Amino acid sequence: MLAKELDQAFKNLTTNQEWICLSSVNASGMPETRAMINLANPKLFPTLQKFFADGFAAYFSTNTSSEKMQQLTANSKASAYYYNAGTFEGLLLMGEMEIITDKRMKKDFWQDNWTMYYKKGVDDPDYTLLKLIPRSYKYYNGNFEVKSGDF
Amino acid sequence: MLAKELDQAFKNLTTNQEWICLSSVNASGMPETRAMINLANPKLFPTLQKFFADGFAAYFSTNTSSEKMQQLTANSKASAYYYNAGTFEGLLLMGEMEIITDKRMKKDFWQDNWTMYYKKGVDDPDYTLLKLIPRSYKYYNGNFEVKSGDF
Repeated sequence: MLAKELDQAFKNLTTNQEWICLSSVNASGMPETRAMINLANPKLFPTLQKFFADGFAAYFSTNTSSEKMQQLTANSKASAYYYNAGTFEGLLLMGEMEIITDKRMKKDFWQDNWTMYYKKGVDDPDYTLLKLIPRSYKYYNGNFEVKSGDF
Repeated sequence: MLAKELDQAFKNLTTNQEWICLSSVNASGMPETRAMINLANPKLFPTLQKFFADGFAAYFSTNTSSEKMQQLTANSKASAYYYNAGTFEGLLLMGEMEIITDKRMKKDFWQDNWTMYYKKGVDDPDYTLLKLIPRSYKYYNGNFEVKSGDF
């Protein structure tokens, strides 16, 4: 279990940032990173807070047809990186990416304006919901200290 | 060669951002990402502009003793990701990381306040200068289009 101070720092970082760097490894073994909207941010996604009450799993919505899905299907190793440019704190969560197939959960996450990404709505086969279950972390406290460990 | 409009977009992204997400792959095959200061930003590093006049090589200074150096020494595949949260543009540059051993170049990059990272100054063996030579790119134009290619 995380020490209380780490737990609070992780909670702050994973909820205050607007976007997350999601990294995967492509077929050439190259790390690929892209910014993803942070679904755990309560200002951006007030209806999703219940999914982030415990632990630090990260969720992402993406197009089933995207290259990142090809990568993650072939190699589920992935990381989520949260950075606070004001405090220089950074948190890297590393684990395996799961594809959520549960229809109720996909519906619970659905936001009305996501039709701009998935034209057919919540049942669009191009709508994929991903869950990164972190197994280990590296936390940069912004003052030259790194703490790492397993969950 | 890059089309003129892409070249300009890349130039903007690689010089306007204050920090870059540098990703490597660790010994477990997991992608690791961390924020690094953008040495190509002319407001932050006016003395370094000559090194960024041509092409899109990215430079990073880091501690020789850092975990990222262990990773990059074992596996030089790396990427640099630039994101503009205002326009949603993103640029991923993928390539191989080189360790710069040329002492003159390390001296040219040296900034006086880097003694906070490398106490012994420019000759500190813990001071490493890295160069990412991009071989391919993915550019997200912020409007649902991705362009990718090789340099």
